[in-house]
Amino acid sequence: MERHTGTGLLRKPDVTLPHRLARSAAATDGVATPNAVVAKWIEDRNLAHRHEVKRIEFGELRQWGFDAGSGNLRHESGRFFGVEGLAVDTDHGPVTHWSQPIINQPEIGILGILVKEIDGVLHCLMQAKSEPGNVNGVQVSPTVQATKSNYTRVHGGRPVPYLDHFRDPDPETVLADVLQSEQGSWFYRKRNRNMIVEAAEFAGEDDLPDDFRWLTLGQLHELLKQDNLVNMDARTVLSCMPAGLEGHEADAVSDLAAAVARSSAQPTGSLHTRTEVLSWITSRQAQHVVRTSPLPLGEVANWVRTPAEISHELGLFFSIIAVDITTNGREVAQWTQPLVRPHGAGVVALLVKRVDGVLHALLNARVEPGYLDVVELAPTVQCTPDNYVLTPAADRPPFLDMVLGRRDDQVLFSAQLSEEGGRFHHAYSDYQIIEVPADFPDAGLADFRWLTLNQLNELLRHSHYVNVQARSLIACLRGLR
Amino acid sequence: MERHTGTGLLRKPDVTLPHRLARSAAATDGVATPNAVVAKWIEDRNLAHRHEVKRIEFGELRQWGFDAGSGNLRHESGRFFGVEGLAVDTDHGPVTHWSQPIINQPEIGILGILVKEIDGVLHCLMQAKSEPGNVNGVQVSPTVQATKSNYTRVHGGRPVPYLDHFRDPDPETVLADVLQSEQGSWFYRKRNRNMIVEAAEFAGEDDLPDDFRWLTLGQLHELLKQDNLVNMDARTVLSCMPAGLEGHEADAVSDLAAAVARSSAQPTGSLHTRTEVLSWITSRQAQHVVRTSPLPLGEVANWVRTPAEISHELGLFFSIIAVDITTNGREVAQWTQPLVRPHGAGVVALLVKRVDGVLHALLNARVEPGYLDVVELAPTVQCTPDNYVLTPAADRPPFLDMVLGRRDDQVLFSAQLSEEGGRFHHAYSDYQIIEVPADFPDAGLADFRWLTLNQLNELLRHSHYVNVQARSLIACLRGLR
Repeated sequence: MERHTGTGLLRKPDVTLPHRLARSAAATDGVATPNAVVAKWIEDRNLAHRHEVKRIEFGELRQWGFDAGSGNLRHESGRFFGVEGLAVDTDHGPVTHWSQPIINQPEIGILGILVKEIDGVLHCLMQAKSEPGNVNGVQVSPTVQATKSNYTRVHGGRPVPYLDHFRDPDPETVLADVLQSEQGSWFYRKRNRNMIVEAAEFAGEDDLPDDFRWLTLGQLHELLKQDNLVNMDARTVLSCMPAGLEGHEADAVSDLAAAVARSSAQPTGSLHTRTEVLSWITSRQAQHVVRTSPLPLGEVANWVRTPAEISHELGLFFSIIAVDITTNGREVAQWTQPLVRPHGAGVVALLVKRVDGVLHALLNARVEPGYLDVVELAPTVQCTPDNYVLTPAADRPPFLDMVLGRRDDQVLFSAQLSEEGGRFHHAYSDYQIIEVPADFPDAGLADFRWLTLNQLNELLRHSHYVNVQARSLIACLRGLR
Repeated sequence: MERHTGTGLLRKPDVTLPHRLARSAAATDGVATPNAVVAKWIEDRNLAHRHEVKRIEFGELRQWGFDAGSGNLRHESGRFFGVEGLAVDTDHGPVTHWSQPIINQPEIGILGILVKEIDGVLHCLMQAKSEPGNVNGVQVSPTVQATKSNYTRVHGGRPVPYLDHFRDPDPETVLADVLQSEQGSWFYRKRNRNMIVEAAEFAGEDDLPDDFRWLTLGQLHELLKQDNLVNMDARTVLSCMPAGLEGHEADAVSDLAAAVARSSAQPTGSLHTRTEVLSWITSRQAQHVVRTSPLPLGEVANWVRTPAEISHELGLFFSIIAVDITTNGREVAQWTQPLVRPHGAGVVALLVKRVDGVLHALLNARVEPGYLDVVELAPTVQCTPDNYVLTPAADRPPFLDMVLGRRDDQVLFSAQLSEEGGRFHHAYSDYQIIEVPADFPDAGLADFRWLTLNQLNELLRHSHYVNVQARSLIACLRGLR
């Protein structure tokens, strides 16, 4: 029976892509831009982008102010973002009701990395970008990092370079395109569009702007190991890179690389089937009740506003502050804005183990008030230990004490990584990947499961499964060799 | 290099499942319950479950009333559901701002079908269930259809039969488990947990309650073709059945069956790759802005409340009414409740075409105010034509006139199907699957794409991609032979 009409319209996934990604990940000294040139580039850019950031009082903010009725902190245009209040009721965790300030940024921005083959190796076009909240100068950032206010140029700045590649791309050139959440404790339902688009050729490639360089995936994996060098937006986009960059078991340069490669390969199997993983996530979403309702910032209980700061009366969590920025390298040379300043450095750790030679990571179905759908998968541990000094042992986060007491030989990855410097002031955490033995007791906790990279890569093709901290660590984990 | 420790902990998907599903779908006259017995069963159950439903005034509702402040209609327990107001601002469609009544039912219920092999053929345990809003008597319903209020027995009713199979199932017995939305024009962010669980054996199987019978997938596909017989909750759970029930091309009994089988098979290819489909959905979520905010029901503009009805001043859309129900066959013998009564019958149609012998369906990325995440994929046409009598031609839904003027020989499926009778009074639509030629002009509309069943089945493993009307038609489409 011949039923096919055979017009050749049917298309299939590009089977060469995983190999091309693996080749880029193996090119750890780059092709277009050798590592020595990268180091010099970052040094140069740090000189070119000097930021002077000083704390000011709220009354000194220009174009920003507190709404007379609600006390919400907002830009006069109504764009960018606002600081509002949120009331939270939940059946999860030791504290079941609270209110807090939260950033409301309903516009969906674009975080985009443009990729291109150079001498047969895929490269990512990265930008050296400085943000007012950074602990250092520039960080390696995506090609494009633009809020809608940015790219519709509400602030009257210059056009965003390379934005056109992401506005209405040829569908066949898109490698990844997914809405992903950001910090659910600080943002109310914020999502950004994480995009990876391949460019064939485009004008001006020999005339790269000073802020942009072509780097391989292997180079980015190495840069991720340096403190505060690859920014949060770059990490989240990298985590959404299609599967394959982990390489093939047969090419592995170490036992660890082989365990990573096997973990990302579909046919190797896993502790839990895909259906079981999805059912577990559904059960957590259905199990936990989180009701949030917007609240005027002025009515948030237990938070105190002084002329220069809004902070919790116990000094915990974070503050809202105001800063004045003068820069020599951004679209707008001087401006003021509010920032969120976390109190205490965070600990963000992923426990991993090898099961029959296949790496599994222990994810936590975590409730945060700003998530769109109740829970997202977080690293094994994600907290600010300082916030728990008053907390009874039973209410301390599971596995925190294990992470704080880990042996050096268990550490597969460790770096201080920054959160987004456009919203957060000196926000960084110790990001770690810690290997535990295959028989590590995980106590059968209902909110924790061991997943493979293959399962995580699949979830990352969809919105709202994996939180931003876990995405950072997955980007690092995928690069371990 | 031998790195595997080989403890045998790694697990893989059950490759026999697709074959077991296909065998059940092929068993169109059942095994446990022949079709003649099914017909008699439904007849008997219709006699056993007599409902007397009469319209009453809101003032005659017991335990329900309008909140003095907000005017919201609610149950005195605060459970079940409430009728509230919603203000909507969007950049999508000809009307960019409106307010409307909407049902708020934040609790996540369970819609569960228990399946079991009988004589080597998978069967679904279906319930003959009557609901106050049904246009007829009983409809074929899932094994379990329970709100949290139901199964925590807020109304003091009897326990929900078979519920324990779904409360904390052995993960290996779960075939599907996913939160899915319901009507986004009538419900605010309602989701139910759609579950399919396989039972090995359990006590009492020779002693089935009168309301329950074991039916094959093939029998359910035949029942779907009858008007108002398989209820909405059964249809949505069936749509989440794992892939495979469409059968294999080699076993196809017709050209149509072969096109359906190929459409559900991964390796046949598709007009758009999976990455392109996901990117298209992301682009629609990012493109359309929908801002909703809760509003007291008393402040909804253009809607009028009389003693017996809340309705739009033009008589369009729907009304909120109150009913008194007396029944001889439900947990509680008499009660009163509000219902939503739609005005005019809906048209819900899916256009399909064969591309190189592979069936593709034309899905619409549709904005509804009650969706959690801006858009969900809807059938090609989903509307109440009566609502468009005053609408200029350019603003009429795309493809509506084509559907209304289709030839009989284009109709692959046509039945009147009901929405949920526990919330809606005589809500039904003409559900149709209409085949168009491969070169059918689809005008390149940005909100429409042709997808295969394989792609739709994949999306249905996740929440919030496919709306309830499309899920109904997909359940029907998967059964076409």
